[in-house]
Amino acid sequence: MDLLSIKDPSFLKNLSKNELEELSGEIRQFLIEKLSVTGGHIGPNLGVVELTIALHKCFDSPKDKFLWDVGHQSYVHKILTGRACQFDTLRQHKGLCGFPKMVESEHDVWETGHSSTSLSAAMGMAIARDLKRENSHIVPIIGDGALTGGMALEALNHIGHEKKKLIVILNDNEMSIAPNVGALHNVLGRLRTAGKYHWVKDELEYLLKKVPAIGGQLASTAERIKDSLKYLFVSGIFFEELGFTYLGPVDGHDYDDLFENLAYAKKQEGPVLLHVITKKGKGYNPAENDKVGTWHGTGPYKMETGDFVKPESAPPAWSKLVSETVRKIARTDERIVAVTPAMPVGSKLEGFASEFPDRMIDVGIAEQHAATFAAGLATQNMKPFLAIYSTFLQRAYDQVVHDICRQNLNVFIGIDRAGLVGADGETHQGVFDIAFLRHLPNMVLMMPKDENEGQHMVYTALKYDQGPIAMRYPRGNGLGVPMDEELQEIPIGTWEVLREGEDAAILTFGTTIPMAMAAAEILAKQGISVKVVNTRFIKPLDEEMLVGILNENMPILTIEEAVLQGGFGSFVLETSHDLGYQHVEIDRMGIPDQFIEHGSVDKLLEEIGMTTEDVVLRMQKLARQKQKRA
Amino acid sequence: MDLLSIKDPSFLKNLSKNELEELSGEIRQFLIEKLSVTGGHIGPNLGVVELTIALHKCFDSPKDKFLWDVGHQSYVHKILTGRACQFDTLRQHKGLCGFPKMVESEHDVWETGHSSTSLSAAMGMAIARDLKRENSHIVPIIGDGALTGGMALEALNHIGHEKKKLIVILNDNEMSIAPNVGALHNVLGRLRTAGKYHWVKDELEYLLKKVPAIGGQLASTAERIKDSLKYLFVSGIFFEELGFTYLGPVDGHDYDDLFENLAYAKKQEGPVLLHVITKKGKGYNPAENDKVGTWHGTGPYKMETGDFVKPESAPPAWSKLVSETVRKIARTDERIVAVTPAMPVGSKLEGFASEFPDRMIDVGIAEQHAATFAAGLATQNMKPFLAIYSTFLQRAYDQVVHDICRQNLNVFIGIDRAGLVGADGETHQGVFDIAFLRHLPNMVLMMPKDENEGQHMVYTALKYDQGPIAMRYPRGNGLGVPMDEELQEIPIGTWEVLREGEDAAILTFGTTIPMAMAAAEILAKQGISVKVVNTRFIKPLDEEMLVGILNENMPILTIEEAVLQGGFGSFVLETSHDLGYQHVEIDRMGIPDQFIEHGSVDKLLEEIGMTTEDVVLRMQKLARQKQKRA
Repeated sequence: MDLLSIKDPSFLKNLSKNELEELSGEIRQFLIEKLSVTGGHIGPNLGVVELTIALHKCFDSPKDKFLWDVGHQSYVHKILTGRACQFDTLRQHKGLCGFPKMVESEHDVWETGHSSTSLSAAMGMAIARDLKRENSHIVPIIGDGALTGGMALEALNHIGHEKKKLIVILNDNEMSIAPNVGALHNVLGRLRTAGKYHWVKDELEYLLKKVPAIGGQLASTAERIKDSLKYLFVSGIFFEELGFTYLGPVDGHDYDDLFENLAYAKKQEGPVLLHVITKKGKGYNPAENDKVGTWHGTGPYKMETGDFVKPESAPPAWSKLVSETVRKIARTDERIVAVTPAMPVGSKLEGFASEFPDRMIDVGIAEQHAATFAAGLATQNMKPFLAIYSTFLQRAYDQVVHDICRQNLNVFIGIDRAGLVGADGETHQGVFDIAFLRHLPNMVLMMPKDENEGQHMVYTALKYDQGPIAMRYPRGNGLGVPMDEELQEIPIGTWEVLREGEDAAILTFGTTIPMAMAAAEILAKQGISVKVVNTRFIKPLDEEMLVGILNENMPILTIEEAVLQGGFGSFVLETSHDLGYQHVEIDRMGIPDQFIEHGSVDKLLEEIGMTTEDVVLRMQKLARQKQKRA
Repeated sequence: MDLLSIKDPSFLKNLSKNELEELSGEIRQFLIEKLSVTGGHIGPNLGVVELTIALHKCFDSPKDKFLWDVGHQSYVHKILTGRACQFDTLRQHKGLCGFPKMVESEHDVWETGHSSTSLSAAMGMAIARDLKRENSHIVPIIGDGALTGGMALEALNHIGHEKKKLIVILNDNEMSIAPNVGALHNVLGRLRTAGKYHWVKDELEYLLKKVPAIGGQLASTAERIKDSLKYLFVSGIFFEELGFTYLGPVDGHDYDDLFENLAYAKKQEGPVLLHVITKKGKGYNPAENDKVGTWHGTGPYKMETGDFVKPESAPPAWSKLVSETVRKIARTDERIVAVTPAMPVGSKLEGFASEFPDRMIDVGIAEQHAATFAAGLATQNMKPFLAIYSTFLQRAYDQVVHDICRQNLNVFIGIDRAGLVGADGETHQGVFDIAFLRHLPNMVLMMPKDENEGQHMVYTALKYDQGPIAMRYPRGNGLGVPMDEELQEIPIGTWEVLREGEDAAILTFGTTIPMAMAAAEILAKQGISVKVVNTRFIKPLDEEMLVGILNENMPILTIEEAVLQGGFGSFVLETSHDLGYQHVEIDRMGIPDQFIEHGSVDKLLEEIGMTTEDVVLRMQKLARQKQKRA
């Protein structure tokens, strides 16, 4: 059928199983084709084609509510709810969002991006439904990876206790982003390998043979009955213990199996956990055979071969530059341990892991635990490198405050994907970290201008032993600058003058430095002499250099690819006033007080007025004001 | 024995069981006496007397490491490690901290205050120990309430997976702070009522009689075997499933039982969960009979009767004022639902709960879930009132960003205990919330000057339907002002002039207003005329009024009982510059860039230079500067 003609999922009600299977194939083909051009989360979506169709056939959205945890697996849902025609614009500026989005469709009832939120939200919806005496099904769909996130466990606990009608779909695909970590995953693994229900009978027979011989004291009794009962216990008892009716495991690519279990789930009064086994990348060989998570989310690829379309000879990615530098230093410093919350691939820690398997700890999707675990390591004179995306560090804010900064522990936080991230959009922009970190006592926060300075900063951070230190680095690749052979410490709290000037100064760091330099060049031709300072330490500021600039009465423009409120520019303002220089003009450029949607970073910067031209205009104005005063 | 003479716990090794029992009694008497004067966490500490003694007898601290989760149950540990002589200064300025504190003793290896961090830290210590090939026991002691916190569950999952040697003591006292909530608690409850091991045999016999009759399809099989096996399953299988060796339940007041199980636990190679049943308040009738949590932490009390020593006729507590106003409005607005993360007593929600049992949801210690659960309610046109302490809101930062603010949902956050809290000290000071909330798009943040304005603000917040709105209110009692009969909406973003003046202006809100008014009075007598503005909206600012003040060229002092960096004064600075008033002198008073320890709020404010005298001095300076300029 013509997928572009789908307006809403009601057409599914009349389709036969054969027609549904045909539809599944068409949707797969559509996704493989479209995403080969735009990129996107191909693996997760190919895995949930039948599950999504079955959900929309068995339930009545939007009356019944689907909550897609993390949300990158909502493409099939988007197709079935009338958005196939927008896939050419997927994850592009003003185009289709890669995550559920309420403004796109009434079928998107909950927006996601960060993981593990769907169960909490679903519980809120269920309580609201019951208070209003309404009648609808609330159906969160959550992956086995997201289930390890603390808030999902908090929610499971609450849901099981309250016994509200709620159907949790556990989309168990063996691999969320990286191969899953944690004991919970082992439980699921045992269920998965148990081969449906057949073991119940086998085990029971085994039990019957064994049990009569059991007796005596507990220690031995428990030991002996445990093994024989093990498989019986794991038949979802873990979830049953939490108060759920456990159904499954169900083959997530078998319509009969899905329909039967969904129908049964709908009839239950309390919370149900329906355990569905799916295969990521199903139906597309390159993605289906992925063992490490490369096909979780991708850029464009050649459809026939599955080869990625890569820009020719790009400089290495920032994540890799940082992780490889840590690895290099770890060869001579045994205290260094790398910690990642489920992002060994994204954070490019594979090399570190292969060289130091004992010193690389993937804790799963568990940012809070990751941060405090790192703090625990630091109390024992280890030097943890906590690699974490800026947007996910938000989830460990309290742990950074209460455990790391308050105890002043030597944790090195590598804040990956800092600044605008582009296609992943507003849930993933790394723009709050300066504002939520710089007010914390003991915190050192820095960002390098290029990968050479980056490697020295990593070295500096790993040598630093006065407390927590964090380095921001952006998504994407380095600038391709030459790399020094020898690593050097950068004195904490020192800035660097990149260009001298007399009329005005630009204070900036990281990704916005090239823009500042380009603007200074243009301004020089207009007779305006601009000083450009690499303010690589965001906290502490280089007060000596700042005072020098303030003493010259130069108007200042601060630039940051981060929120303006409470950010770096704000810190410069505060400090200037505190030091008695309130008369100096300070203009701040950065991200205004709004959430920034998806689109290419360049496009987004243009939209919020952060281009070379904008810098030139604002500097012209500042310089004119100074001339007026003089 | 003389508790004051204890230097370290080594003396325990030579004590007989009888001597230990005697010691337990002495420690209980000591605690009951000392805390009757100072106040403190009496209930939790009376509950862990034998457990703490047993731990120090069986292990070798500080080589072996005890991590006290939350930490308010560490008093017995403090006594045994040489700090009995400091109990007269408990929780007082420069006195003994109410929580573990590394500077106090080498036996305090991890500092706590917020709950659920001990398992993550212990795991970090265990990995460090093994990497360094050292040999020691790592022993986190965690309550059943703290176990429901997401990060504890994340840690359990990780520990179970890694199989490191670690002895988790589950201190199951049936009540952490409020009666526990959640399915996990039910699991523990079933264990507890199971009456030690005896059921194993009973159940097994029952099973044997039943099992041969079982057969056929799973649905019915599972149903039928489930009930009979239930008690067998719950014999710690929940924890066994997570990879732990489960031991217990153990009577936490029986030395023989404790010693036997601790000895067994020490011999295990992988992680052990030792389930210890204790009784909060054990040995002191008033505390032992407490059913709601009144005796969790108290002020001074009469030792003989257990009557609390209360200040005579104090105005009502802020928590109560807020919760009761919400309750009043909830009578005519069915959309209002109260949500608390385990703080129904602290947040004084008992009245609301008794009147609207269906609309009061206690989610347990689970701040992340609480916030996103509230967001879920809001998507369904409910109006959640999320009552949460400022310091604990830190743990839901990402949920406030990603789920509440980003989706712009109508959640009313009641930020309780905002500002300095006094005796609980640096882990509990509510001083970061302005800095971590005001940079969030869509957020409205306010703080009332007194309880009458407070009730109008609550009304305003519950009427507001443009997105999230938060109201800060302090620990302690209102001012005793007359209360209006009729509730009124306060226009969002409006400030209020409390006193007119021409020479300088003070912008402040909440608890620091009386200080500002008193200073203005003193300054008036010195011929300095000071305008005082109640800046009750911290975000958005009242730009119109601010511009009016800036236009008069009055120097400004901002005062906030919150961190200066990125705070309210910083916001005034930013806005003044953005509006082109960078020449106006703005001085900011608030909490400097350091963690603030325990002590009375007045004492702490004095120490950081936030008294009426300080305000007078700084205003004099500002006014002089203005005169110099004129």
